[in-house]
Amino acid sequence: MIAKLTDGERSDLLPTLDGWAHEPQRDALTKRFTFDDFVGAFGFMTQVALLAEKADHHPEWSNVYNRVDILLTTHDAGGLSQRDIEMARQIDAVAKG
Amino acid sequence: MIAKLTDGERSDLLPTLDGWAHEPQRDALTKRFTFDDFVGAFGFMTQVALLAEKADHHPEWSNVYNRVDILLTTHDAGGLSQRDIEMARQIDAVAKG
Repeated sequence: MIAKLTDGERSDLLPTLDGWAHEPQRDALTKRFTFDDFVGAFGFMTQVALLAEKADHHPEWSNVYNRVDILLTTHDAGGLSQRDIEMARQIDAVAKG
Repeated sequence: MIAKLTDGERSDLLPTLDGWAHEPQRDALTKRFTFDDFVGAFGFMTQVALLAEKADHHPEWSNVYNRVDILLTTHDAGGLSQRDIEMARQIDAVAKG
């Protein structure tokens, strides 16, 4: 069982993230990434897919042409865990290239 | 401008597709594909991405772990066109391996 973030951890960690919104219904982090075109978007997804598989922590995501919408939450925790914070940071690093 | 499918073309073509549903609000084709795991799902998406880029006809799609939901429509036609029928068949061929 993975621990859900405590209120204290949320206050400390969520403000340190870059542009991720908190979605209260799912207790998830969401962010939209926009690229020049489909090749940019899918290239980004491919890099994130490799990180996600390595971490065994997979995003819920959708893609329409140059846009990628990502939602991160931890099913085993029933909400946000430290793993989502780490994955959000890794995804941002990929997006920055 | 790409031509929207006529009623006659719809009657002829849609029943020939394998498991694609017609979504009337978007005038789109939708289908869910399920794989053993994330690697199976994302491997499938990667093959479809290459086909889509080659055809310059991109799906709207989402992925949650081993599941991929695809929606096909032709924005330039304001609904279904021959290009969606062709892409649906190509995607099915990829899924069959």
